[in-house]
Amino acid sequence: MVELIRRTLGGGIETAGLRDDAASVAVPGGGSIVVSVDSVVDGVHVDLALCSAADVGWKAVMGALSDLAAMGARPLAALVALCAPESESGDGALALGVMAGVAEAATAAGCPVVGGDVSSSGRLVVTVTVIGTTDGETPVARSGAVAGDVILVSGPCGRSAGGLRQLRAGTAPGTGGLGAAYRRPVARLAEGLLIRQSGAHAMIDVSDGLSLDLHRLADASDVGFHLTHIPIAEGATLEEALGGGEDYELVMTMTAVDARRLTERLAQAGLAAPLRIGLITGDKNERQLGDHELERQGWQHHIG
Amino acid sequence: MVELIRRTLGGGIETAGLRDDAASVAVPGGGSIVVSVDSVVDGVHVDLALCSAADVGWKAVMGALSDLAAMGARPLAALVALCAPESESGDGALALGVMAGVAEAATAAGCPVVGGDVSSSGRLVVTVTVIGTTDGETPVARSGAVAGDVILVSGPCGRSAGGLRQLRAGTAPGTGGLGAAYRRPVARLAEGLLIRQSGAHAMIDVSDGLSLDLHRLADASDVGFHLTHIPIAEGATLEEALGGGEDYELVMTMTAVDARRLTERLAQAGLAAPLRIGLITGDKNERQLGDHELERQGWQHHIG
Repeated sequence: MVELIRRTLGGGIETAGLRDDAASVAVPGGGSIVVSVDSVVDGVHVDLALCSAADVGWKAVMGALSDLAAMGARPLAALVALCAPESESGDGALALGVMAGVAEAATAAGCPVVGGDVSSSGRLVVTVTVIGTTDGETPVARSGAVAGDVILVSGPCGRSAGGLRQLRAGTAPGTGGLGAAYRRPVARLAEGLLIRQSGAHAMIDVSDGLSLDLHRLADASDVGFHLTHIPIAEGATLEEALGGGEDYELVMTMTAVDARRLTERLAQAGLAAPLRIGLITGDKNERQLGDHELERQGWQHHIG
Repeated sequence: MVELIRRTLGGGIETAGLRDDAASVAVPGGGSIVVSVDSVVDGVHVDLALCSAADVGWKAVMGALSDLAAMGARPLAALVALCAPESESGDGALALGVMAGVAEAATAAGCPVVGGDVSSSGRLVVTVTVIGTTDGETPVARSGAVAGDVILVSGPCGRSAGGLRQLRAGTAPGTGGLGAAYRRPVARLAEGLLIRQSGAHAMIDVSDGLSLDLHRLADASDVGFHLTHIPIAEGATLEEALGGGEDYELVMTMTAVDARRLTERLAQAGLAAPLRIGLITGDKNERQLGDHELERQGWQHHIG
């Protein structure tokens, strides 16, 4: 989308910030906001056979909020545009179910839903716009990584992808386990704030897979990386950890000193320690996992 | 949607402002924003057989911006979520066409597009979120009308509905005429600012028809109205003027003195004079057009 916007809006229209998860907008009167939009489409991003309407609403809100987390922003408000199949439009059970999940996620994240729009459509589409703030501080961009930075991730990866596999196979435990990670992912908002406050140089959320999102961070920063460790969630596979999206873990780069400070701050807040996975290097063509090149799309059985 | 949100989010979540076209959000560090979201769905709000992909993009942006106009706000930024049929997703011609129209409308309105999202979907859905400001002044709500206010509309109505009729019949002139009003409606942003600055008590944009939107304003204000005049656009019918949406004319109520001041300000800005159509009354059950009750859904052949 970023490229599509850039190409069609190129001249005359503000495109700064389009590379990041969320864009910054100055507000007359002094403040500024960061904003982002995300759509969840039934049959593309979610499968109503594997999760409830409320799960879809929850996932749509958390997916959008994760873009704020990746900037180190806290949410101020959300708007929800709901397109539901004709028979379900308006006050139908599907729409009500989605909105119940939206409400649960918004409450969990402390983000008021201040507006919305409902339409009929052939397929369920839930579009969530989120507005956040960094309280006068500079948001963390994807583009700030520098050679020598350590690379950390906020937690082990592959839970959502593993959950989807279990749900498809019918082997997901009823509650908890990896199925819940797929149906009810949680944006790392508290972690994102502390990461920004600890001086992170660059950050991105894992929405399309640790590998692809790390490549994006390196592309935006014009650097390379050398990974030495991939933290795999219990029950997930290496493939899922590298290629599975929607975990909404945060990947960040910072000095080793700041990383230690971040670990302390997270512990004080009762949050898990970030996991060090590698180093940023100055050669933008170096994209290594151990001795092998890391493909953009994740794990392709090159090692072993 | 407002009722859907209210019902599902009722407790715990901020619902103030949900009755209005756009919601206000306070921004840390000073200032506040007004925000709104609108979706345009092919086959529901638009028909790609009657207008181009670029027209759909234009209409989606202007429809959302009209909500800002109705608050007396000026635009700061827009975000666009585009769902296009599988074969057209991403870099397809349909998506590019829509974005070209988005860019044209955004440029015409002076509203930068700062972010977006693109997905595949069974049907074209364009969701536009707009963020605006009233520069520290109070936005104009729907709910402020008081008995004795004059009711004005920013221009004659029914152009978009008449244009749709002409396009369906194949009788719309190639350019200009009512077809253009359907394909390229214009949000009355400049008018909305001057209306707010002239002390309007209440305002709403005509997105669903003069009749229905005026009823909504009266409902929100707990008042009645007595209309004496319906300004019908040239080439449109009375039915289209009362029941046709998407003209994006603005309906406002204010004192007669302020209405004269507004007319002068609009003239100074080179904009058309507002048209006086009736009076606000204190009896909320009085919803009159001449000697007859005005139905919510517009004109139902009760007179004549």
